[in-house]
Amino acid sequence: MTSLEELKARIKDLEEQLALAKSKKSDNAPVREKIAQMSSEVVDSNPYSRLMALKRMGIVDNYEKIRELSVAVVGVGGVGSVTAEMLTRCGIGKLVLFDYDKVELANMNRLFFQPHQAGLSKVAAAANTLIDINPDVEIETHNYNITTIENFNHFMERIRQGSLSDGPVDLVLSCVDNFEARMAINTACNELSQTWFESGVAENAVSGHIQLIIPGETACFACAPPLVVASNIDEKTLKREGVCAASLPTTMGIVAGFLVQNTLKYLLNFGQTTHYLGYSALTDFFPTMQLKPNPACDDSFCRARQSEVAARPKQATPEAEDVVEEVVVHEDNEWGISLVDETPAETFSEIQNKPAGLAKGIDVAYELPSASSGDSGPTVQDTDVSLEQLMAQMKKI
Amino acid sequence: MTSLEELKARIKDLEEQLALAKSKKSDNAPVREKIAQMSSEVVDSNPYSRLMALKRMGIVDNYEKIRELSVAVVGVGGVGSVTAEMLTRCGIGKLVLFDYDKVELANMNRLFFQPHQAGLSKVAAAANTLIDINPDVEIETHNYNITTIENFNHFMERIRQGSLSDGPVDLVLSCVDNFEARMAINTACNELSQTWFESGVAENAVSGHIQLIIPGETACFACAPPLVVASNIDEKTLKREGVCAASLPTTMGIVAGFLVQNTLKYLLNFGQTTHYLGYSALTDFFPTMQLKPNPACDDSFCRARQSEVAARPKQATPEAEDVVEEVVVHEDNEWGISLVDETPAETFSEIQNKPAGLAKGIDVAYELPSASSGDSGPTVQDTDVSLEQLMAQMKKI
Repeated sequence: MTSLEELKARIKDLEEQLALAKSKKSDNAPVREKIAQMSSEVVDSNPYSRLMALKRMGIVDNYEKIRELSVAVVGVGGVGSVTAEMLTRCGIGKLVLFDYDKVELANMNRLFFQPHQAGLSKVAAAANTLIDINPDVEIETHNYNITTIENFNHFMERIRQGSLSDGPVDLVLSCVDNFEARMAINTACNELSQTWFESGVAENAVSGHIQLIIPGETACFACAPPLVVASNIDEKTLKREGVCAASLPTTMGIVAGFLVQNTLKYLLNFGQTTHYLGYSALTDFFPTMQLKPNPACDDSFCRARQSEVAARPKQATPEAEDVVEEVVVHEDNEWGISLVDETPAETFSEIQNKPAGLAKGIDVAYELPSASSGDSGPTVQDTDVSLEQLMAQMKKI
Repeated sequence: MTSLEELKARIKDLEEQLALAKSKKSDNAPVREKIAQMSSEVVDSNPYSRLMALKRMGIVDNYEKIRELSVAVVGVGGVGSVTAEMLTRCGIGKLVLFDYDKVELANMNRLFFQPHQAGLSKVAAAANTLIDINPDVEIETHNYNITTIENFNHFMERIRQGSLSDGPVDLVLSCVDNFEARMAINTACNELSQTWFESGVAENAVSGHIQLIIPGETACFACAPPLVVASNIDEKTLKREGVCAASLPTTMGIVAGFLVQNTLKYLLNFGQTTHYLGYSALTDFFPTMQLKPNPACDDSFCRARQSEVAARPKQATPEAEDVVEEVVVHEDNEWGISLVDETPAETFSEIQNKPAGLAKGIDVAYELPSASSGDSGPTVQDTDVSLEQLMAQMKKI
């Protein structure tokens, strides 16, 4: 027999289950209303109070300017997804996302995507989550590979016209995992004179880096020898059956953190934007440096941008003075790159597994697997191919 | 009047709503099944393939051991929630979570929590999400403040018996935001001889640190002067109406990344676990150091642990040799702390806003607001109170 008490208990139980079910992922309705203007008001319901507090703390003068800014994130994987989430939570005006991959359970060892999103395109899944987190951010997605000719032209157009005011985006963040995509971004940004950050994480999951590239002012991706690619000749076969690179949510989260932190510093004009920041997880070592552009760069737009910079009247800004004061080391290295070393010399000995023949003070974009990693594939050390030969091979691609 | 029929109708309605809510969720994609054993198989459906690849890459010998390990995370806020998510995605055996706070929209400027979770307890909301991400992880939650006497005793018990095998957890991670909670963790860990990591992020959002504490072997939280607390005397009033600290998803994500990366190195025995790692976001500066325990520490259990360590027969392990080789600097500073400086001396000049009177090479646990931050509250520089007076004040708390 069913008593009133039993029915009431059943109702209470069902109500709890329903509340829990509703509190889980809801893909349709945005959970909070849009907020017209960023406020500093300190109430639990204000998602911007802790960001606007950066003004009161004397860190950022004009935090609310972030709502006018647009950033393109190319590659929405382990680094790019966290990058997009951080910018969304910071209240960026607009994100333009590019990726052609699908979410897989094999991606669950990095932050951001969840198992229920497996099978969705990364850009669609990301946009869904990001809009839930912050409906004030405008999100534009492109589910394609930027390296095909047709897509590349569209990619260029979105970089040039993708901002909130239909002008160029304020910054491009490269979070891709392969050489071709990096070169495509480099080519586009040199032609458009578009400032961008390159980022990367090593195949062995324990190192990474970010690098600011201002066409004509700093080395572009074609100026500096992308030694990684030259040495890790397995790259194209990474996704073949039975072989996969290692990755960790820690390393990828840290690299995304460095990328967005320096993006904020660059766009909101506080602190010092670091030109190259490396991260070696095994020893907690963080090399920094600046790479000057290569006058003999293969990319004609890079050389054109360098000429424009050289023709500029010198301004007596503090930053310009800093550059003048820097001591240029290795003026005459084999690649014609002038490199300004920002890391104390004695700590450089901590960089592990540098390819033989690399000038002191030049870092590789990705750390090579350590000598103890017996079966991690061919490296410069255990093949007979010289760096020069590898560079030549790479240029043929 | 409540009739049986009305109650039955209400039940039917709730059952339908629940079915709808559940079907919506399973429409999108099922949350994955538990996986009995970690596999290295490289298929898109294997969430552990990129982690197990750390073995093939020669980074970690026995990655699957992580499933036997248990970690307590105290504080599930901006750092603790990301810490718990990273460990969950890495496939940790068990997490024990402690927090007494609720999710608010004002937390949405950090990673992890989402607006639809506002109002839920942080531990319940976190457990919900973490189980969706990885159902293989066992999650135990405690929704209470560890600093009350009754809760503290229960907290101690769970540290001592909270592992998968009902023994002590393998590591405690402190992700709390206040002095009392840090001291409670310190007291418990000294008594239990429990190794833990302390972590923290500055009120101005642009610096943070992690610190490994092995009772008797390294300085405990009471050994080293917690200068932050002494200088940031506003701490207790942080949550009052109209005042709030700044925070950024970048800084908190990076500190969580450092914390979990060093947790993995420590628990899975690869690379070098860093004893103290600081992060200064404005300049991308990363000080490291080791702090030796203070023989005159106020905590009697710390002194007892130091005696035990001193009585141990010296082992000729590589690690022990390293310690012997280290040059101890500042042997006779005013706090009786022996400090091993791991950062090249000349880079120390980059630490900004050190309180006057601090010995060279000793870092503060949190960076003080810069001199330019006019209205950020009293600091050592702009009060007439000496460090000694502040330390004395602090000890009275």
